[in-house]
Amino acid sequence: MTKQSRAAEGPPVALVFGVGPRRGLGVALTRRFAAEGLKTVMVARDGKRLARQEEVFRAENLDVLAFAADATEEQAVAAAFDFAEAQGRLALVVFNVGGNRAAPALETSPADFEALWRQNAFAGFLVGREAARRLAALGGGTLLFTGATASLRARNPFLAFASAKAALRGVAQALAREFAPKGVHVGHIVIDGVIDGDYAKANFPDFYKARGASGRLKPEAIAAVYWSLHQQERSAWSHELDLRPFNETF
Amino acid sequence: MTKQSRAAEGPPVALVFGVGPRRGLGVALTRRFAAEGLKTVMVARDGKRLARQEEVFRAENLDVLAFAADATEEQAVAAAFDFAEAQGRLALVVFNVGGNRAAPALETSPADFEALWRQNAFAGFLVGREAARRLAALGGGTLLFTGATASLRARNPFLAFASAKAALRGVAQALAREFAPKGVHVGHIVIDGVIDGDYAKANFPDFYKARGASGRLKPEAIAAVYWSLHQQERSAWSHELDLRPFNETF
Amino acid sequence: MTKQSRAAEGPPVALVFGVGPRRGLGVALTRRFAAEGLKTVMVARDGKRLARQEEVFRAENLDVLAFAADATEEQAVAAAFDFAEAQGRLALVVFNVGGNRAAPALETSPADFEALWRQNAFAGFLVGREAARRLAALGGGTLLFTGATASLRARNPFLAFASAKAALRGVAQALAREFAPKGVHVGHIVIDGVIDGDYAKANFPDFYKARGASGRLKPEAIAAVYWSLHQQERSAWSHELDLRPFNETF
Amino acid sequence: MTKQSRAAEGPPVALVFGVGPRRGLGVALTRRFAAEGLKTVMVARDGKRLARQEEVFRAENLDVLAFAADATEEQAVAAAFDFAEAQGRLALVVFNVGGNRAAPALETSPADFEALWRQNAFAGFLVGREAARRLAALGGGTLLFTGATASLRARNPFLAFASAKAALRGVAQALAREFAPKGVHVGHIVIDGVIDGDYAKANFPDFYKARGASGRLKPEAIAAVYWSLHQQERSAWSHELDLRPFNETF
Repeated sequence: MTKQSRAAEGPPVALVFGVGPRRGLGVALTRRFAAEGLKTVMVARDGKRLARQEEVFRAENLDVLAFAADATEEQAVAAAFDFAEAQGRLALVVFNVGGNRAAPALETSPADFEALWRQNAFAGFLVGREAARRLAALGGGTLLFTGATASLRARNPFLAFASAKAALRGVAQALAREFAPKGVHVGHIVIDGVIDGDYAKANFPDFYKARGASGRLKPEAIAAVYWSLHQQERSAWSHELDLRPFNETF
Repeated sequence: MTKQSRAAEGPPVALVFGVGPRRGLGVALTRRFAAEGLKTVMVARDGKRLARQEEVFRAENLDVLAFAADATEEQAVAAAFDFAEAQGRLALVVFNVGGNRAAPALETSPADFEALWRQNAFAGFLVGREAARRLAALGGGTLLFTGATASLRARNPFLAFASAKAALRGVAQALAREFAPKGVHVGHIVIDGVIDGDYAKANFPDFYKARGASGRLKPEAIAAVYWSLHQQERSAWSHELDLRPFNETF
Repeated sequence: MTKQSRAAEGPPVALVFGVGPRRGLGVALTRRFAAEGLKTVMVARDGKRLARQEEVFRAENLDVLAFAADATEEQAVAAAFDFAEAQGRLALVVFNVGGNRAAPALETSPADFEALWRQNAFAGFLVGREAARRLAALGGGTLLFTGATASLRARNPFLAFASAKAALRGVAQALAREFAPKGVHVGHIVIDGVIDGDYAKANFPDFYKARGASGRLKPEAIAAVYWSLHQQERSAWSHELDLRPFNETF
Repeated sequence: MTKQSRAAEGPPVALVFGVGPRRGLGVALTRRFAAEGLKTVMVARDGKRLARQEEVFRAENLDVLAFAADATEEQAVAAAFDFAEAQGRLALVVFNVGGNRAAPALETSPADFEALWRQNAFAGFLVGREAARRLAALGGGTLLFTGATASLRARNPFLAFASAKAALRGVAQALAREFAPKGVHVGHIVIDGVIDGDYAKANFPDFYKARGASGRLKPEAIAAVYWSLHQQERSAWSHELDLRPFNETF
């Protein structure tokens, strides 16, 4: 394809879905990728917040572009990829969208159950499928998914979240098996603990405080691991790894 | 509740969601439970087929009642439970609904992905939540989910199916952890292989034939295992087990 | 082989390695198998205790024979199998030998580490290999291994026990894959909790008491599950399942 | 302790157990650590080969010291640690010892079974325990274990190897849980495939050739991953990850 071929000659591009509050994993990933020299496109639903974050990065002299899109909409996802590919050669895609709500089973409505699936798993399918398609066409690249302890073990009061995260893990695993031979490195990172960012602080304040500063995962430390996965040479790719603070019980 | 209390004095009742073709797991489960003396209600969308199957059971002198309902609809699920509880004391619920379609990732549409999730996981949530609520209120009972190899490992060309089955497993696991202390025994049976029934014969004919008769799981043999789970004494409950033919590679 | 052929014409025989105190899993398994009509040989190192237990079973009119042997000795294991095969057609073998000691890593000596491996895993290999060889020669049979939570997850202070139990699980899994096509059903039962017997009472008294009677696995309930595995028809065999009390956290 | 305190003031030291043929993972790890500026001590049983390898590294201007020791001997392991700690502050320990022999169960002698356990798991316990003790005393450090696919799944003809590797994984997991709060980062790397080195070439020639050059894991690529684990900040530590070539089926 002419457009893609031209684009493929440009600078390497990273595309990060799920860039939330100022202090959080999405922002840390974006900053790290841009600092490593990738032109980085960050995606979230909230265009205003994203625009402010773009300003922050500009002030840091980082080459970051914002693109507002809802990752649960097929067309919006495709548009985000089109935008990213217009900037250069797509090299790295991260699906970091997600949301969690705690509720016992009997207080989980069908709408709640579906909403968490749509945000965590359906969006992951849309982004993952599009990334796999485009990266395979370019001869390869990296596709990373943010997982959680709940991806592996479902516990009360996280039925809906765990089911959705397990569904996302299935997407990551199937894509890894299907697309690795086509040069697409698919990784699933199981984050086992509380991220030291604004999301957990606002949504799970008790949990957040109980851990103390040394008991939370630093977004920058996680971002370093995502970057190390992107750096892996194709003869030794990781598909899945866990990440937790040194003092987390597991 | 008066109605429930009265109902609770009646005979033990089994409720099976997902009773398909004549030769298949749903029918075998229903036959086994009825043969063991449980008044058994079988549920499927196709009321006509179900009525014919009811006739078959009647001819076998088995106490089986048909109830047509779509397990992806909250109200329909509740109605099936109401109907079952009107027959006696609900003791055993099986979620055996499911559907599979093979497709590589790039040939899996968002609608396909969602449809498999809705049928396998969302319906499983509706049935599982309702069963947990009602069995806990009655002081206990058994709730079994039919899983598959794909529940644990996602492979091409089963991305959508694997994601949906992993999501269902999350539901089963969360319910097990939340409701076991309330007397509800939740089991998840991982069927690793091809069932010797009409479904696989019609939908995966090559796969079906390749295994040969001795390489397929007999529905009656699976039903015997479901029954043995229901028989487990509460000091030694299994949550998960695998089932495969003796000559299946794993 | 003439002897085996003759033996193979006799009654079905069960062989249970690891029959300890009066109230415990080994005794419960032996009682159940004998009650189901299998001529049952029970094996342990302590011949005197075993002889007393044989008297108990005789008083119950159960056809049980004692055979004193150390399961960590190749010749002794072979002798136990010879003795069992002299009674009839070997049908069911259980490896229930095991021992546990709690100690932090730095208080675990190399001798301790090796002793637990020898008792739990090396003995399991000797028994498993011999059972697989003989059952395959007879056209099939059942071989069950008693596992523990630690078989899957190693935690402090159970380093040595967990390593040994994981090693045993490897034996069970490899034998299952190699011998299932030869008709040998190999099962691994993960017991997740405290057995309500003399062993835990004597060796882990605090742990034992803390659970309360309803929080411990009844030996008879576990034995019923082992029996149900032996009853599984070969088109639907379980290789692994977990067992825990209804009120155990997992 | 005075000696340790003095030593602790020196340069960071890496200690690698299991440095085999010229082209292999042990050599690649040693080279990488030395190239990153760690004074590196490499350990193997064969002192002559080790001395020749020391010459090679000297010619590369890398600060590497050889220490001949049998990792299955407690005193020898302690001596290797003493030697390493005499060079500076112990920071990174790798247990890369291992050996594999393929054999069906009935051709696996008790001596074979024990030998593989001793080399893979018992040695891993000796090294791991000593590393945990010394690194914890120094306030922290990294301890990495080389695992294999067989660590997770036992298959014919790898019964003995799989059992031993599962036992090693238990050691790694227990140490991780016990020592992480003391600052010791314990990692277990599951190598899923054939390493492109002299060991597999000599011991599994058919398997080695069948993969082709692009289907084998490059030792340098694996070493880069071990290094990235050592670089992980303590708020985000991985305990386990898999590594395989992009075209490996899994």
